[in-house]
Amino acid sequence: MSSPSEDPAGIDRTDPEAEIAARAEAYRNWGRWGEDDVLGTLNFIDSAKRVEAAALVREGAVVSLSQSFDTDGPQKGWRRRTNPVHTMTDTGVDAERGNQGFPHGIGGADDVIAMPLQCSTQWDGLGHIFDHGFAWNGRRAGDVVTSEGDLVTGIEHAASVIVSRGVLLDVARHLSPETGELPDGYAISAAELDACADAQGVTIGRGDIVLVRTGRLARARREGWGEYAGGPSAGLSLSTAGWLHRTEIAAIATDTWGFEVRPNEFDVPSFQPLHQVVIPNMGLTIGEMWDLDELAASCAARARWDFLLSAPPLPITGAVGSPINPVAIF
Amino acid sequence: MSSPSEDPAGIDRTDPEAEIAARAEAYRNWGRWGEDDVLGTLNFIDSAKRVEAAALVREGAVVSLSQSFDTDGPQKGWRRRTNPVHTMTDTGVDAERGNQGFPHGIGGADDVIAMPLQCSTQWDGLGHIFDHGFAWNGRRAGDVVTSEGDLVTGIEHAASVIVSRGVLLDVARHLSPETGELPDGYAISAAELDACADAQGVTIGRGDIVLVRTGRLARARREGWGEYAGGPSAGLSLSTAGWLHRTEIAAIATDTWGFEVRPNEFDVPSFQPLHQVVIPNMGLTIGEMWDLDELAASCAARARWDFLLSAPPLPITGAVGSPINPVAIF
Amino acid sequence: MSSPSEDPAGIDRTDPEAEIAARAEAYRNWGRWGEDDVLGTLNFIDSAKRVEAAALVREGAVVSLSQSFDTDGPQKGWRRRTNPVHTMTDTGVDAERGNQGFPHGIGGADDVIAMPLQCSTQWDGLGHIFDHGFAWNGRRAGDVVTSEGDLVTGIEHAASVIVSRGVLLDVARHLSPETGELPDGYAISAAELDACADAQGVTIGRGDIVLVRTGRLARARREGWGEYAGGPSAGLSLSTAGWLHRTEIAAIATDTWGFEVRPNEFDVPSFQPLHQVVIPNMGLTIGEMWDLDELAASCAARARWDFLLSAPPLPITGAVGSPINPVAIF
Amino acid sequence: MSSPSEDPAGIDRTDPEAEIAARAEAYRNWGRWGEDDVLGTLNFIDSAKRVEAAALVREGAVVSLSQSFDTDGPQKGWRRRTNPVHTMTDTGVDAERGNQGFPHGIGGADDVIAMPLQCSTQWDGLGHIFDHGFAWNGRRAGDVVTSEGDLVTGIEHAASVIVSRGVLLDVARHLSPETGELPDGYAISAAELDACADAQGVTIGRGDIVLVRTGRLARARREGWGEYAGGPSAGLSLSTAGWLHRTEIAAIATDTWGFEVRPNEFDVPSFQPLHQVVIPNMGLTIGEMWDLDELAASCAARARWDFLLSAPPLPITGAVGSPINPVAIF
Repeated sequence: MSSPSEDPAGIDRTDPEAEIAARAEAYRNWGRWGEDDVLGTLNFIDSAKRVEAAALVREGAVVSLSQSFDTDGPQKGWRRRTNPVHTMTDTGVDAERGNQGFPHGIGGADDVIAMPLQCSTQWDGLGHIFDHGFAWNGRRAGDVVTSEGDLVTGIEHAASVIVSRGVLLDVARHLSPETGELPDGYAISAAELDACADAQGVTIGRGDIVLVRTGRLARARREGWGEYAGGPSAGLSLSTAGWLHRTEIAAIATDTWGFEVRPNEFDVPSFQPLHQVVIPNMGLTIGEMWDLDELAASCAARARWDFLLSAPPLPITGAVGSPINPVAIF
Repeated sequence: MSSPSEDPAGIDRTDPEAEIAARAEAYRNWGRWGEDDVLGTLNFIDSAKRVEAAALVREGAVVSLSQSFDTDGPQKGWRRRTNPVHTMTDTGVDAERGNQGFPHGIGGADDVIAMPLQCSTQWDGLGHIFDHGFAWNGRRAGDVVTSEGDLVTGIEHAASVIVSRGVLLDVARHLSPETGELPDGYAISAAELDACADAQGVTIGRGDIVLVRTGRLARARREGWGEYAGGPSAGLSLSTAGWLHRTEIAAIATDTWGFEVRPNEFDVPSFQPLHQVVIPNMGLTIGEMWDLDELAASCAARARWDFLLSAPPLPITGAVGSPINPVAIF
Repeated sequence: MSSPSEDPAGIDRTDPEAEIAARAEAYRNWGRWGEDDVLGTLNFIDSAKRVEAAALVREGAVVSLSQSFDTDGPQKGWRRRTNPVHTMTDTGVDAERGNQGFPHGIGGADDVIAMPLQCSTQWDGLGHIFDHGFAWNGRRAGDVVTSEGDLVTGIEHAASVIVSRGVLLDVARHLSPETGELPDGYAISAAELDACADAQGVTIGRGDIVLVRTGRLARARREGWGEYAGGPSAGLSLSTAGWLHRTEIAAIATDTWGFEVRPNEFDVPSFQPLHQVVIPNMGLTIGEMWDLDELAASCAARARWDFLLSAPPLPITGAVGSPINPVAIF
Repeated sequence: MSSPSEDPAGIDRTDPEAEIAARAEAYRNWGRWGEDDVLGTLNFIDSAKRVEAAALVREGAVVSLSQSFDTDGPQKGWRRRTNPVHTMTDTGVDAERGNQGFPHGIGGADDVIAMPLQCSTQWDGLGHIFDHGFAWNGRRAGDVVTSEGDLVTGIEHAASVIVSRGVLLDVARHLSPETGELPDGYAISAAELDACADAQGVTIGRGDIVLVRTGRLARARREGWGEYAGGPSAGLSLSTAGWLHRTEIAAIATDTWGFEVRPNEFDVPSFQPLHQVVIPNMGLTIGEMWDLDELAASCAARARWDFLLSAPPLPITGAVGSPINPVAIF
């Protein structure tokens, strides 16, 4: 059997089942790290990679790659994904008025939050997506994620793992140097990822965390959220699955809601086919809604596209995703 | 006027107002970084410090310093601080049963969380504590933190700041080598912090983030949470305020609920006097409920007590604290 | 001093302060039920009124006046008012798959909700609105509602009170018999309330709970939520304050987001002036977002416009509002 | 086959499967109200019953049967059931300080809540409990309650139903006239329910809502919550299933956490066997954690044990339970 096409134009837009299945089979990593594995491609990060990454810190500069967490976010309630609601249980106004009941002039403010774990900048955990009822490493989806959470591959397992070399591929700048933004529906190909890396003079290797900038967030900032959450966007083509597998990267993240191109590349009903290939089959950790704009400016100014990336999830037991504040350290 | 005592025995246990006021005045940093400052002692972290910290990464090993975020935590509802409630909006059980309405065999799991921002491992923001109605840098508390959140010094301002050299002071192991745990109510003194550093052969310098291990969490792990949240515990003495100021550290964290010794060092009603001195007056960022046990074992095994520490908060707009997963990188 | 105008056209649209102040002074009930009162006009409901109301039950028919509580609601995040988020902690899918750990074949489903108390059909508590820093009965607002909630007039005080005679005034049908809907911005006058009652052949008396139907919800149902929450709508004119006082009704509710006409009746910045008059000054309990459509049809079919109304709030301690399911019993 | 025993002593304490199955079969109402039924025994309430109930209103007195909703409740986190967390998004302290940005002196307070639907006084919906993977009316549990909620028998279907004659059986007072409280583990029998009704001079009929007082809440009030939520308690014996079926009551509620006796009546692992019989098989709506103490005093003072009961659930779409404030009207 021939390998699945790595050209977006080679996708049969009428047959998502077949296009997904071919790639799921070709790039499936089940068993690669043992039967009990809970990390997938995060296993590609090793000590040497982290030492290499730390050596990239030459200036001591830090760039946060996180969007804000507040009610002014893009979520509109799809599948109950709302924006965070942050409320105060004590305030400075109370403290100043003296109604808190504390001694010797101490006052306090305290707060709570209610939010979907994927409301803003986040990692998708390995339990986030299933393929025909199967989860990462070939487990039955129903054995992994119940109403009690992800009992097997919860995001807490990655708590001390996701520190590695980060590489920014500013594909938007590479392909649209004037605007720095790709048009909605633009399907980024494997060849374009390679060409962007070449143009930037950076290599991608095993264990790297690759950040792909499309410019979608920059546009939302300028024009308002609009359909940022779930609507049209540039993103990775389904046909990049081979590239994602071959490069042995540890994780990938974008500045978009959904990582892959939207609408998806089919003329029949479809939904996030690249997720279906890479999360349950390949075991790839995906980041979404990252803010790569300041990072892109920083990289361009330095003409350096790699850095130490620290992006550990919150160890929320059994979570299938985690809000994060990833930092790039130069 | 003489300097405030740095000996716990020198505290007048009948007069918290005076003991707090003396230290607030002696160690107040208002204006030190300008009128508009929102970072306090985090300003001590500079690029050189980060480069120095990154150079400590020689093995590529990562240790998470975060406790879990789940309902099995220590919170009991004090001032509405509960444990996190994590619930699923979609599960693998649903996906496997095929009730999600997605095409081509894709299935998904998704989740939400409701939690106090200080329910588990966290940073206290600068808007968390007030002194007689004043917040960090001399602002009126009611001008800073309203029901809409911290309008001035919200934790989001530290999103790209808290990466520095971390130093563990395993005071519990230093003072109680057999048990590795300090007794409840034990007030750690400035002299003991210095002696511990000496014994470990480590120096503390400007911009460092100091982690003080008391063994309190280890005991809670062994015996159950009990009164971990708010009850008796070893911790820093009020008399360490001078040390915290003099060393010019950027931040400090402990493995306890409340950072300072509990019960507090007064025979009359009192509540967290060291917080009252160091947060609003000194501008010190405090971490609480960190898990320093694996870190302590790692440091002891390596006979190395410093490392690169990456602990950026989630940029929750206007928050007076943030859940975090700090990582120590060796 | 002359009485404030009861004609909408008599309002000086350039001077909200004066128009509000005149009515606040004219209709203020402070002290009417003693210094410690926490119920305001709900005091008008007495035993005789309830006996009279129960006598209206002649058919045993019940009509719910509550909108749904779910994510498909009208809220858009204004002042952090979102739609409810209801999530499951256990499901039938789990039970059927047998993963719940219970013996002898029992299975369970359980759920949680996060919601603003005013997200859907609700009562405004007496602590919901203030006039120049004063709350109901002349108390300082800051003495009544702190970050801990309404310490004085919390909605729990009305837990066993709000059962009375209900009267529907279907003003929309009365004024627009063809459409049964009033246009946005239509300010209902006192004279129109009286004329509607006359046309329906119903009297309004002390202790009654009056329900005013504008048709706004019917339109939202037909056209989508749009600006239902906070946008333009028919509603009561500020000039009805005298009517609301004179009739000695216990409470009033409408099928709109905000009870009073929107936009408000001023050409300068203004916000909910009738609320400002009637809640803190008159002590009137207001219901919003009630579903009066089936009720209107029921009343018309019966040519009866009064009924037993049971609408007790949930006794949420310290709440300034409560979600409710009011029922009309015929 | 003989009928299941109605004597608690007749239960085979070693065989919950058989004891449950016998009663499930004997008292199953599947199909009784048609294939599409979503109300179960609530169907027993008819118009005549409500007219009869309204005629009981002779004094115009109202008693709330709801416990408080706040953080000082009995929940301890079992299966993520916590106490409600009510927080303010605006306060009177803010309004008084003038930081809310509103014109002409208006100020406001607003609030949100996060809570399990069964945290305090509540109805169990028909989707709350399953028997061997089956839900009410013989549906597959997984077809009824998914992660999206109860798609078939959600509590919203009862929004305009639960108004009927209420009857209090103060079994605690009947059996323990001195203390008015039953001991933990006391299994109330069908004979005792009948004897209590006889002693009170009240009859139980089709469509009634029966409230059984054990005194458990009174004790919790006096001694602290302790194990109120889930721990030992008096309650109905499994052997009352026949009585619950034969009487054709519409619903039943108690002042306990779990309605039936705790520990359950088996010497082998078991959990809420009476729930398993009556919810999915009989279609009985159950109320828990009701406050029947003031009601009991009222009834005793009046020597009247029946009243109009209005207890409609909040129409939370797809909920398997609802917080309620039931009111008894005399």
